[in-house]
Amino acid sequence: MGSVIGSAGLAGCEWLRYDYNPTLIAQDRPESFTMWRYRQLLPIGDGPVRYPVPIGGTPLLPAPALRQTLGMPHLWLKDETRNPSASNKDRATALVLEDGLRRHIDTITTASTGNAAVATAVGAAAAGIRAVIFVSTDCQPDKLALMTQAGAWVFQVRHGYPAAVDLSRTAAHTFGWLDRNTGANPLTIEAKKTVAFEVWEQLGRQPPDVMITPVGDGPTLVALDKGFTELVHCGLATRQPRLIGIQAEHCQPLVRAWHGTPAQPAHLDPTATIADGIAVVRPAIGNAVLDAIHRSGGALTAVSDDALLSAVATLASRAGVGAEPAGAAALAGLEIAVEHGLADPAETVALLITGREMKANKATTRPDRMAIVETLDEVERFLAGDC
Amino acid sequence: MGSVIGSAGLAGCEWLRYDYNPTLIAQDRPESFTMWRYRQLLPIGDGPVRYPVPIGGTPLLPAPALRQTLGMPHLWLKDETRNPSASNKDRATALVLEDGLRRHIDTITTASTGNAAVATAVGAAAAGIRAVIFVSTDCQPDKLALMTQAGAWVFQVRHGYPAAVDLSRTAAHTFGWLDRNTGANPLTIEAKKTVAFEVWEQLGRQPPDVMITPVGDGPTLVALDKGFTELVHCGLATRQPRLIGIQAEHCQPLVRAWHGTPAQPAHLDPTATIADGIAVVRPAIGNAVLDAIHRSGGALTAVSDDALLSAVATLASRAGVGAEPAGAAALAGLEIAVEHGLADPAETVALLITGREMKANKATTRPDRMAIVETLDEVERFLAGDC
Repeated sequence: MGSVIGSAGLAGCEWLRYDYNPTLIAQDRPESFTMWRYRQLLPIGDGPVRYPVPIGGTPLLPAPALRQTLGMPHLWLKDETRNPSASNKDRATALVLEDGLRRHIDTITTASTGNAAVATAVGAAAAGIRAVIFVSTDCQPDKLALMTQAGAWVFQVRHGYPAAVDLSRTAAHTFGWLDRNTGANPLTIEAKKTVAFEVWEQLGRQPPDVMITPVGDGPTLVALDKGFTELVHCGLATRQPRLIGIQAEHCQPLVRAWHGTPAQPAHLDPTATIADGIAVVRPAIGNAVLDAIHRSGGALTAVSDDALLSAVATLASRAGVGAEPAGAAALAGLEIAVEHGLADPAETVALLITGREMKANKATTRPDRMAIVETLDEVERFLAGDC
Repeated sequence: MGSVIGSAGLAGCEWLRYDYNPTLIAQDRPESFTMWRYRQLLPIGDGPVRYPVPIGGTPLLPAPALRQTLGMPHLWLKDETRNPSASNKDRATALVLEDGLRRHIDTITTASTGNAAVATAVGAAAAGIRAVIFVSTDCQPDKLALMTQAGAWVFQVRHGYPAAVDLSRTAAHTFGWLDRNTGANPLTIEAKKTVAFEVWEQLGRQPPDVMITPVGDGPTLVALDKGFTELVHCGLATRQPRLIGIQAEHCQPLVRAWHGTPAQPAHLDPTATIADGIAVVRPAIGNAVLDAIHRSGGALTAVSDDALLSAVATLASRAGVGAEPAGAAALAGLEIAVEHGLADPAETVALLITGREMKANKATTRPDRMAIVETLDEVERFLAGDC
């Protein structure tokens, strides 16, 4: 412990004094715990990591007050809101950019309306790489502010999100840019699987019994499956956790597919839920999600907006974790999972808290970085003004 | 490096395969780098740390793109936005709460209109301790939402911020609550001094030549001074950095005092600047700030709101760091410091990026947790309904 040997008033402050000597600070160098710890299981070459911001190594919180409230003594929160842009998207962005820095590629592109776009803009700024982001014309002004403040070029695509994805992927292919689109680049899953490695290490080299995660396009859950499966392949674990995926009631294509029941229009309305981060009508890698859940012995279930809001409030007031509704979906789904016997309160259950929204800073949005486009030609002409 | 030995299509995903074996993940247990590393220089007893969320151990970023822009090859950003509630206030909150957990005190109180109040609400929720926060009646709705979402009790005090401080401190004294008010509790400076220890270790056990930090009430700068001074007392450093404090032009009482020139009303208008986090007319420990800067051979200077907004934009676009205007003040002040010969571009200069605002989540503010009060009796009666 610290040996306080006195206290003095110094210009109006109370100033504690210790028995000062060099041994009071440990000799070893503190090491950041980041996702690069797992580089032997990432497809990057030797040599120093180029990406200049620590990513991953997020805490696995014991959340004692929440455990008490829920009567679940072995509940854990994997808090991905502690990443630089406050979501697990930062892992994928960082690995794609690391690859780009090694191959001297000067531009990264993605289509997204949410955290992935913000993560890409912010991550590219840190790496000194240009970000070109495609969004639909109804993208929130706050998100546009965050992206352009980070120096990204933002193209609003008139024909909506699928057209934005098409333009982004075509641009990546045509111009040789880094492709950060969900499901397009295997590096995004490689990066996100490090969450599984971290949880396993943080539990003392044991997988949890159950891991619960929000599911939109699918990469987060599929990456967890890959990570836990690879631990088994490495001989470092003998089993993997049951994976439980959570979707919003108003947009639950994979839950319907899992139960083999046809989805009604009320099940496929992404604008009807507050969980915009996981409201995806046609998940990019939905089949891989179903496959992973089947192999892990898990399940898929849907939660109401009320349950999501309640989960946001509970995370804030019982664990001090600020999550957006989609980011809190694992906690919303936990109650249903316990009710339906998918998880037992005595088991070791890890909830993946995927992220929260960042607040746009007071600096102005940069209209000079934005344009409404329909074709790749327009994109090219607009960016040419950049040279 | 990772040895990818193949790639397979799996339910529509590209799935990289490695030469799996147990040596691919290091044997040592990853350790979180947190401020508790310095507990021999903190006034807490033996035994495990009770506070359940990792705090501190924030990155010291090399920010290569920013270095290039500024022509400063040895510039570093100490990124305190990576703390749980996105500011350096979390350190002070965590140490005060750790003390409370050890002494079984069930309530923490503070008066604040900004990040300290949010940090206190969020930190108390994590620790399972009640937070009672006093604000003036003009506190932003967003901040109120964050505090009440985290379960804090929030009292709006009619006679403004000084009256809020009085009520909070009287309540702490009367009821035996933890007092988290700026300048009231030596633990706040003890906690914040760990920033100095971290920067010194992250630079390879060397202090920087210069460290620049925003200054409002003063504890952040005074704590840096204490930390760097203690390293000298321990025989672990031979000198301390020159400390440069930055205030906003519209609210610069300490800059005026430093230059020995009387402050005009235009220098003391906290509502006139966007840097609300450091806009303090009567700094709680102003004399200690002047003393620390004098001893370190540093200086104090003021920056315009335009310079603050420009610094916010530059941090976002050249380093991927999202800061609020007050949090970016060190970068705004850097240019002036170089111009005036207070820092040389070839020196090792560390900028303390103190924080950013959190976004309130979509969950509702809880009006049942708020009341407008004038006296301690009213506070007591309101809280009695809580039992």
